[in-house]
Amino acid sequence: MRFEASLASLAPDLTVFAPVRDSGMTRDKAIAFAEEKGLPIDVTRKSPYSIDQNLWGRSIETGHLEDIWTAPMDDVYAYTADPAGPREPDEVVLSFADGVPVAIDGQAQSPMEIIVALNARAGAQGIGRLDMVEDRLVGIKSREIYEAPGAISLITAHQELENVCVERDLARFKRQADQRWAELAYDGLWFSPLRKALDAFIDQASIHVTGDVRLGLHAGSAVVTGRRSVVSLCDYELATYDTGDAFDQSLAKGFVELWGLPSKIAAMRDRRAAG
Amino acid sequence: MRFEASLASLAPDLTVFAPVRDSGMTRDKAIAFAEEKGLPIDVTRKSPYSIDQNLWGRSIETGHLEDIWTAPMDDVYAYTADPAGPREPDEVVLSFADGVPVAIDGQAQSPMEIIVALNARAGAQGIGRLDMVEDRLVGIKSREIYEAPGAISLITAHQELENVCVERDLARFKRQADQRWAELAYDGLWFSPLRKALDAFIDQASIHVTGDVRLGLHAGSAVVTGRRSVVSLCDYELATYDTGDAFDQSLAKGFVELWGLPSKIAAMRDRRAAG
Amino acid sequence: MRFEASLASLAPDLTVFAPVRDSGMTRDKAIAFAEEKGLPIDVTRKSPYSIDQNLWGRSIETGHLEDIWTAPMDDVYAYTADPAGPREPDEVVLSFADGVPVAIDGQAQSPMEIIVALNARAGAQGIGRLDMVEDRLVGIKSREIYEAPGAISLITAHQELENVCVERDLARFKRQADQRWAELAYDGLWFSPLRKALDAFIDQASIHVTGDVRLGLHAGSAVVTGRRSVVSLCDYELATYDTGDAFDQSLAKGFVELWGLPSKIAAMRDRRAAG
Amino acid sequence: MRFEASLASLAPDLTVFAPVRDSGMTRDKAIAFAEEKGLPIDVTRKSPYSIDQNLWGRSIETGHLEDIWTAPMDDVYAYTADPAGPREPDEVVLSFADGVPVAIDGQAQSPMEIIVALNARAGAQGIGRLDMVEDRLVGIKSREIYEAPGAISLITAHQELENVCVERDLARFKRQADQRWAELAYDGLWFSPLRKALDAFIDQASIHVTGDVRLGLHAGSAVVTGRRSVVSLCDYELATYDTGDAFDQSLAKGFVELWGLPSKIAAMRDRRAAG
Repeated sequence: MRFEASLASLAPDLTVFAPVRDSGMTRDKAIAFAEEKGLPIDVTRKSPYSIDQNLWGRSIETGHLEDIWTAPMDDVYAYTADPAGPREPDEVVLSFADGVPVAIDGQAQSPMEIIVALNARAGAQGIGRLDMVEDRLVGIKSREIYEAPGAISLITAHQELENVCVERDLARFKRQADQRWAELAYDGLWFSPLRKALDAFIDQASIHVTGDVRLGLHAGSAVVTGRRSVVSLCDYELATYDTGDAFDQSLAKGFVELWGLPSKIAAMRDRRAAG
Repeated sequence: MRFEASLASLAPDLTVFAPVRDSGMTRDKAIAFAEEKGLPIDVTRKSPYSIDQNLWGRSIETGHLEDIWTAPMDDVYAYTADPAGPREPDEVVLSFADGVPVAIDGQAQSPMEIIVALNARAGAQGIGRLDMVEDRLVGIKSREIYEAPGAISLITAHQELENVCVERDLARFKRQADQRWAELAYDGLWFSPLRKALDAFIDQASIHVTGDVRLGLHAGSAVVTGRRSVVSLCDYELATYDTGDAFDQSLAKGFVELWGLPSKIAAMRDRRAAG
Repeated sequence: MRFEASLASLAPDLTVFAPVRDSGMTRDKAIAFAEEKGLPIDVTRKSPYSIDQNLWGRSIETGHLEDIWTAPMDDVYAYTADPAGPREPDEVVLSFADGVPVAIDGQAQSPMEIIVALNARAGAQGIGRLDMVEDRLVGIKSREIYEAPGAISLITAHQELENVCVERDLARFKRQADQRWAELAYDGLWFSPLRKALDAFIDQASIHVTGDVRLGLHAGSAVVTGRRSVVSLCDYELATYDTGDAFDQSLAKGFVELWGLPSKIAAMRDRRAAG
Repeated sequence: MRFEASLASLAPDLTVFAPVRDSGMTRDKAIAFAEEKGLPIDVTRKSPYSIDQNLWGRSIETGHLEDIWTAPMDDVYAYTADPAGPREPDEVVLSFADGVPVAIDGQAQSPMEIIVALNARAGAQGIGRLDMVEDRLVGIKSREIYEAPGAISLITAHQELENVCVERDLARFKRQADQRWAELAYDGLWFSPLRKALDAFIDQASIHVTGDVRLGLHAGSAVVTGRRSVVSLCDYELATYDTGDAFDQSLAKGFVELWGLPSKIAAMRDRRAAG
């Protein structure tokens, strides 16, 4: 459906034929049909997972996963090693410029190269496995397994760099914009006017999301252990509590009184109303 | 400030004295003052972390953490073991009724007992460490370390049970309500009218968030491996793709055409406008 | 579609037959079919408007209205008099208890009676006409004329009473909840779980939306001219600026410095980054 | 406070002196002080309104307006004539290019010239009076009267042109962005990073908000009576219901079934859960 919705925007004059859907073939029959016709599909009756995969991640569904109480068996995974396996921890420094990943361990690389490298290194540490029930566009829920070692590592680092470089109100609203953006992508509305407008918001919000984040990679987790930025909003002079403190604590008195004033007035009203 | 804002709502006739803040004592002087007066504080000049702790979690700031590039030293942690330490994995089944945790491994317990138990078991696996820069209410950023093994485990399980039991549109809007709720709690507005109204929303949304979630606890991660609910929205008849499929794929054709229609019309307009 | 979506929730075992839609009848043919079969419809080929009407309002579309540059002709209106006609102004006092209309001009009445009375009185003043292009659920835009004299008057009064009785943060978030609620109603999702949860939010937010609003009704406009409430949040002692002022202006200094601090730090950062 | 917060971003090295606020002068004393010093203020003890005015509008508070049940007396108004006064209706056509007003009645003018012209013409018809209780930044409510004849007329026309030219999902999210933008402007955070990012969103969303809107101006109301745009999303072929209908009604069946499916599944679950 994502392809079809996208094509409708990209080439509205094309007619889409979706024979499996439009002729109502079941999964079993579609597999049989493909085998009969010699179509190169990666699914057999013996390995009945439905798998999508690309650079950004891999998703696996159906088979024994349809029983949502059953833990995934090891044979569903291809991008990630067993998180519990014994191995040495890894550590990586990711660099961003205006929100875009630009270097790994100090080596300038394209975003694609960085994803490839992270898929390998974070995947080797078992990072990026997700097992979740989600809401399909067509209105039903299904359980999906994802593997996205590079994506999860990048997002973890990028989120923390935003914590350092993005102002509070902007960061708070951006969560809503990010959520809506993700809904559009998931819902097949990549070529919608709303995505373009959200992209403009995000591009502006990403200016000065520039710096380095150090991640520890180990045992299934990507963990931020340090971040630095020449455009950080963490002003050491302001943030420290020691003698020489640049933050004027006395201002806080006026702030907190007015900050809490609407709630205080409402509480006084409620009390009076309750008699 | 959270105490003061809360007191303003609970007891608006009280006057708050905040001597450290209002007389502008620096942290150094406040420690000296407390030592001189024999006040029972947990901070010394030698261990200069600022620590808050309670049942739900533990936060640590200042000291070497003020250099945000420096990884936390081991001495900051008290609720959690080293995630990398060798140990056997643990597994736990958490049960919820209408959104509230009610049992652990099949044993009925109060939410408080469950938190205590999870703090011990998840803490022993190194779960629940957070290292992040955040936006203080007073307008500056600072770096905080958190330990919340029980909270992180509970939230992980609860989120997945919501995935199973909460309808899509409700789940999407609830993310906004949850975010706003968290902002209010963080910003010291616990007793605000908005929190009460959000609680009413969340209470209604939590009806039928009932069932069990199995978590693997190991090496710093709490991972969902199964979930079950007698009020699940994952209708096996609807969700399966095999022969006998209850989902009428032919409906999808009409759906996707109308679903993508606004974007398609906009794309046609844009093309015409571009000449 | 709203009926069908609602029936799906109310009586999922019923099958819906929608002969006009499912057999692809055009509007012309549907009218001919109804005339042939003697079905009691209110539409003729000579008066080709498509009209829906009930207690809450009346909507009119098609006919000459399809040319969106053409102003509506007078024959589209039935609930409202010409706003420009000469007549004496009217004035009404509406009373609410916990958000619900309970009296009109001091006479206790049911919400339905109040709507009926306002439809007559506000309609006689030409209030409540809307002429707008809107987004249909099926993905196309169309131009609609609405007449909702009672609804517009009630909503105008209720909004202002909320201004008086609802705390700021709650009022701000409620706008989002109200918008989402309206989208659900428009989109035929009245029986959705999200509407129930939004209702719980709105019910809680409406506690203490209690008092009277005076509206002037004249020449197409319902205008608030006064409001009063025993549970008002407008504390005269706090709000006045005269001598004896209960509002401590000196607190404002601390407030504004911290309120603007995140933007100030970001501005300093931007300047430094720009060199 | 808006000036002070803005200055903090524009010129963080400046110190702001706010003598009336910081020395705690009441309004009475501030007026006396200004009279004594010969400062050119527009307020006297006899006409004790507090008035702000500029090109965009005029706001009036205090005086008899502090009793929120009392209707405003005529002497508060300066930009608008009595809406009830007898006069001929006016009509205006406003033209926009990418969201920006560019012409009035076919004459190219700057946005400022258009505002000035509309202030005169809409003001003469009594348009743009607002009487409302609002939430001040400092946490208290107060009642304000506004006159904004040009602004209200422009916003009315612009909103309807957005209805014609902006895709549905974008229009819905833009309401949230618009609300947040308005909160920032009201709250003195004009120079905040969030406003810049919202501006980028709005700029992108405004591409193709191009065309003409005809407004009737009369008796206090600016009413849209027509709109046209060469980049309209109202495709006549798609929107009409007559024979030759380009909209394939049969698609609607599939759409509505999947659109309502999540609510239907939830309703089935609820029924089963209720026994």
